[in-house]
Order: sequence, then C-alpha cells, then structure tokens
Amino acid sequence: MAKTYDVIIIGGGPAGLSAAIYAKRFGLDTLAIVQQPGGLMATAPLLENWPGEKSITGLKLSQKMEKHARKLKVKMASDSVEKVHSVDGGAKFVASAIEKQYSAKSIILATGTKHKHLGVPGESEFEGKGVSYCATCDGPLFANKTVAVIGGGDSAVKTALLLSGIASKVYLVYRGAALKCDSFNREGACSNEKIKVIYETNVTKIIGDKMVSKLELDRAYEGSTELRVDGVFVSVGHVPQSELAGILGVATNEKAEIIIDKHGKTSVPGVFAAGDVTDFGFRQAISAASQGATAAWAVYEYVSKKGAAKK
Amino acid sequence: MAKTYDVIIIGGGPAGLSAAIYAKRFGLDTLAIVQQPGGLMATAPLLENWPGEKSITGLKLSQKMEKHARKLKVKMASDSVEKVHSVDGGAKFVASAIEKQYSAKSIILATGTKHKHLGVPGESEFEGKGVSYCATCDGPLFANKTVAVIGGGDSAVKTALLLSGIASKVYLVYRGAALKCDSFNREGACSNEKIKVIYETNVTKIIGDKMVSKLELDRAYEGSTELRVDGVFVSVGHVPQSELAGILGVATNEKAEIIIDKHGKTSVPGVFAAGDVTDFGFRQAISAASQGATAAWAVYEYVSKKGAAKK
Repeated sequence: MAKTYDVIIIGGGPAGLSAAIYAKRFGLDTLAIVQQPGGLMATAPLLENWPGEKSITGLKLSQKMEKHARKLKVKMASDSVEKVHSVDGGAKFVASAIEKQYSAKSIILATGTKHKHLGVPGESEFEGKGVSYCATCDGPLFANKTVAVIGGGDSAVKTALLLSGIASKVYLVYRGAALKCDSFNREGACSNEKIKVIYETNVTKIIGDKMVSKLELDRAYEGSTELRVDGVFVSVGHVPQSELAGILGVATNEKAEIIIDKHGKTSVPGVFAAGDVTDFGFRQAISAASQGATAAWAVYEYVSKKGAAKK
Repeated sequence: MAKTYDVIIIGGGPAGLSAAIYAKRFGLDTLAIVQQPGGLMATAPLLENWPGEKSITGLKLSQKMEKHARKLKVKMASDSVEKVHSVDGGAKFVASAIEKQYSAKSIILATGTKHKHLGVPGESEFEGKGVSYCATCDGPLFANKTVAVIGGGDSAVKTALLLSGIASKVYLVYRGAALKCDSFNREGACSNEKIKVIYETNVTKIIGDKMVSKLELDRAYEGSTELRVDGVFVSVGHVPQSELAGILGVATNEKAEIIIDKHGKTSVPGVFAAGDVTDFGFRQAISAASQGATAAWAVYEYVSKKGAAKK
C-alpha cells in the first residue's frame, strides 16, 4: 500500500463520477473505484429528465460522464471494495479489494443501490433464463415474444414502454391499484396497445423448464392464475448498498440508507456519501450528480482544514 | 386573471428550467416566468464541470435546457415579476408583473443572484463604456486591448482566462493574497503569460473620458497607483435576488439567502425555492438544476396532498 490519496470515491454512477470530476478539479489527489461506469444508470432504458437532454440512454449519459472524468485524468481503478476500515484514529481509511488495498484521508461512499428481488420460487433459478432486471440489457432477446414486467413505479412503466417496442405483448403486473409514476409515462403506458396492466396482483411463482414459460398469480386474470410469458422483467425497487457504511459505523436510517447532511457529510468525520445510497429521498440522476459534486466540495474543505490539500 | 396554475416558477436559470421540466413531467399545470433563459449561467464563459460535458458555454447549456422545456410544452411567460402576495389564507399566490397577474397554488422562487458591484466612483458612469460584468457578452470588444478583471474567485479567474484569448494583456486585480478557485483554473491563470495578477490591491476609482482609460489603485503597482486599461470586468461575487421572498415573509439568512430544507421547502407553506438564491452554499449549475428538480417534486407532493394534482 504505497500512497495515501486525499480521497477515495467508491462507486461510479452519476454520484461517483460527478464527485470524481469535482474532486479532481479541486486539486485533490483522487482515486475513483469504479466497477461499472454509470452504475445502475447505465442500465436505464431512457432518461428524459436529465436537464438539457430531451432523451438520452442511461448508457450514453454514463459514457459521457466517464469520458469527462478521463479527460481530467481522474485515476480510476476497476475493482470491488469488500471492506473499509479506519486507521490512525480516523485520520486515514483503508479500502480493501480482493487483491489490493487503497488508502486515503477521506472517503466518498457512492455505492448506490441494487435491484430488489421478488423473492419468489423460480426467480433465482431462472435468472438469465427469462428472468431479468435490465430491459436495456436483455430486452432485445424477446423480440415478438410475450413478456411481463413486475412492478408499478416509474422504472417499471418505463421498462414496459421500452419493451413494447420489442416484444409483441407486455403485461405490467402490479400489486397496487394505480400506477405510481410521472404522468407522461403513465399516459404513454395506458394508451399503448401492446401493454396490458394487471392491477392488484402479485406473482407468487416463476415457472418453466429450461426457460421461463409462465407466471403463477395470486389472483385470476382472464379466468386463470397462470400467465403464459417468455420473459419476466422484475422492477420492484432498489435496496441501498450501504454495507461499507455499516462496517465504518456510519449512521443509517431504517431503510439502511446513509444519513447525510445537505453537503454529504455522514456521522463519521472523513466519510462522505452521495447518490442513491443516501437518505436524500429523491432518486434521480441529476440529484445524484449534484450530491457527488457537493460531497467533493465538502471533502475539499475537510482535507484543506487538515492542511493536506495541495495549495 | 383567468386561471390558477398548480405552480408558478419564477426564474429561468438552471434551477428554474429544471424545475419546469420536472413539474411538467409530474403532470403539474406549470407556468415558468423566464426573463432570460439560463439566467446568469447564460453569461458564463465556459462550464467545465457540468457532468458529462467536458467544456460547454453557459449559453449553449442554457439553450439546451430551454429547448428541453419547450419540447415538453412548458408554458413560458417572458415577464418580470414585481410583487407576489398570497390570497385565500395562503391557499393561492398572485404574482404581479407590470401589466399582468398570474395565479397559482404554489410558487418556486428560482430568482438567482445578480452581480455585485464594486461601488466605486466611475463604475455606474462607465457601465457599457468599458465597465462590464460579463466577459462572454463584452469580451470580444477588447481584442488586442488591455483589460483588468477585478476579483479573485473562481469566476474572476475564469473571466481572466477567457479574456486572455482576446485581449493583449489582462490584469487580475485582487484584494486578497491568494487566488480562491479550483486548482485547474488557478494554475491556468498563473502560468498564462498574458495574465498578471496584482495581489492585495483594491480599485478605488474608475477613470475615463468617453470610455474607461485607467483605474485608481489603493496600492502602487510598478511605481504607480494608476493602471492604464481599456476595459474593466467586475467579478466580485453575487447578491441573492430574494426581494420576492421578503414580500412573502419567507425566512432568509444574514446574507439574504432564502432558507430551504433539503427538498426546497421554505418557511412559508406553498412557497419553495431552488438555486443560487437559496442558502445551500454550493453555487454550481449542477446543484441548481438538482434543487429545481427536487423543488418540483416537493411541489408535486404539496399540490397532490391538497387533492389538486391531475390524476
């Protein structure tokens, strides 16, 4: 473990990449540990609310941000951090990946969220065999086939809309009575001939042989509790990836989200957080990017006060 | 005064335009009152920290955001709001321009800041005659001439860098002892042959005949307290335009910035704020855009609870 960075940023979604861009411009000796540039954003079919971009794929926006960071010569490590601990009474942090260790005066946790699973029989068994969590990635496999999207939030509806351009039929299976998403998408989904919304219904089992062939429902739809599908896209929300925060003793709320102040400080000095892993409450790319930038600023203030920033 | 909107957004900088984009997508009946699309951002020479854009002029990014809002058919009024008052016990707000009145259930104040003036003799007299607050707008008038930039913050340094590509000589006159700006620009300015930084010096008077011809300094530079220049760009900071907040009784801090919670709520129910006019503390386009989006979300929650949002 040779050098000690000013800051290690863990995560490469809009929060992490924006933090990296800002930290570097603040003159901080910065390491960004990025497994997947763009993080979950890279799997988003379409963003239509990134101000200034009427319509852009998550992948494209991710690439633009990564390019921006690389242009600034941000040092990036493609690694997966398993553990973090503090040394020297909190003056330094060590992030451990499988084969390497990285050390810094401060840390920004921008570890985001992961897809929530349904937790029904057949789900893990058929993952990659008809069960998917990413329509952008796997949608094209279902051209002219019948698919189901499970969920009723903004991203479930967007997923259904995306798939309606590929599949022949899209069921949107939702446990609630009304779709919860912004009106543009909701109207788009409701007026789409290929999309059929099945309300107040849960999937209880995913059934198939080599590949998914049907879903078991807890309420009959058109006279049957079995729904024939070729693929199923699970879009029921996200869980924060706040395990590293837990190891560091950083305070989290009842949803396991990292509690931050408005500038990204956590309960542990030297540890900052940004993006969907935090308790900010509004999960949007623009908010994540802003939180990343703000956390980099807070780190700059923190490191400067310690007399460690380059002048 | 015919209709009552769900929300009136006052201001068209990154905060206002982003709020408009989000409010519209939330299905809110939205009016954006925009004097100048992009606001002060439109006058920024170059943004190099809008995540995903390695380098973009403030004008270009402003146009992209305006286009985005127009694509979504956001209703925009080009007007200047002079007064705001609440009626029906706070259930409704009326914004008065010179000839028109607009009414809504809620308001987002995204009124930004204006350039701070030096307040020295000659400054207002020579405005437009050598005194400028916008290098993007007026820089080209000083090709191969000698100019001074007053200030030492990030935007003063960026202004000096921009002008160094146009003028033959750029003095950066700063009252402090070290430039306060992120390291990229600082190094750029210090290594630029055309830029000469004059530290710990104040301008006490702007002198000229028809046009600016020299500055009076409070400390001799190269043996003289007069500095010969053809133009002077004042870049000494900004003051929040929070007058409307004052009229509404919205709480502000000692800097006259509107106090908001993390989602943009002010002390007055139904009144929200976003961007540089707030007490957020980190004045960046990305933060303003995020605050605008978040305030739109908070408005959506507020209006929905009142049973007024379109379902």
